[in-house]
Amino acid sequence: MASVRIREAKEGDCGDILRLIQELAEYEKLAHQLKISEEALRADGFGENPFYHCLVAEILPGPGELQGPHVVGFGLYYFVYSTWKGRNVYLEDIYVMPKYRGQGIGTQIIIKVAKVALDKGCSQFRLAVLDWNQKAMDLYKSLGAQDLTEAEGWHAFRFEGEAMRELAER
Amino acid sequence: MASVRIREAKEGDCGDILRLIQELAEYEKLAHQLKISEEALRADGFGENPFYHCLVAEILPGPGELQGPHVVGFGLYYFVYSTWKGRNVYLEDIYVMPKYRGQGIGTQIIIKVAKVALDKGCSQFRLAVLDWNQKAMDLYKSLGAQDLTEAEGWHAFRFEGEAMRELAER
Repeated sequence: MASVRIREAKEGDCGDILRLIQELAEYEKLAHQLKISEEALRADGFGENPFYHCLVAEILPGPGELQGPHVVGFGLYYFVYSTWKGRNVYLEDIYVMPKYRGQGIGTQIIIKVAKVALDKGCSQFRLAVLDWNQKAMDLYKSLGAQDLTEAEGWHAFRFEGEAMRELAER
Repeated sequence: MASVRIREAKEGDCGDILRLIQELAEYEKLAHQLKISEEALRADGFGENPFYHCLVAEILPGPGELQGPHVVGFGLYYFVYSTWKGRNVYLEDIYVMPKYRGQGIGTQIIIKVAKVALDKGCSQFRLAVLDWNQKAMDLYKSLGAQDLTEAEGWHAFRFEGEAMRELAER
């Protein structure tokens, strides 16, 4: 039987990561916003001061199975900073291919991120979720996360490219 | 007349930054969550791979005025990563002392962060705001930001210390 391994991404995984990012963007109905490339993922995640870190979930073939390992999920995270609590980890995206859901792969990725956070002296672990994705919300809550938008009223704001450029030129 | 300067924070500003963080926590009614120290701010912001960057707003005395420069506001930011758009900047906290509001100091800090973001090749600039802080929401919107919680339904989730540790031990 095939088994699952969660491991740190290598530069050679960027093609697979991009494929999964594209799938996730379609799932989140935000594919029109996608502007990332494999080259950017390589440069930004695997240089001297990486902008992000990534875990991949890999299906390992069982004995006698011919196909090689196959990346079926990822969790992309980075370190942020709370003025209240200091170092924090932020899980920007997590995705498991539909065919491989229901086996706890997403939970394994989240647990691994929590381990990394603890190792690095972080006191919190943040993420964001779309309100129509009830399954994800339920999963995070069942694992112990709190919905801060609901509990404290936090709203996420963003200056998009053009708005940001106009702001910088004031 | 006194004038305002926005500049990058130095390690020696950490005492002032902590004072303002404490004021902000009280303003946001979240002072009970505060667990940062001046030592942590020094170590995490001014080492080799800083976890955050900070701008301070300083009142410069007018000619003939005796008192020295006085830090009255700050903006603490760091770099994050979008799987859709690549490099991003995140403004974690911004604060101006009540006495110095209404002079556009907050706007000046935000503009400076947008300039840094553009310089560093970021395509977006994110921040979060509490829903009862209508004045801040109105300011960000007037400067061109979009409320993503309203527009797309993003909810902020967080695993707090104990929940994160339990998760890591699964």
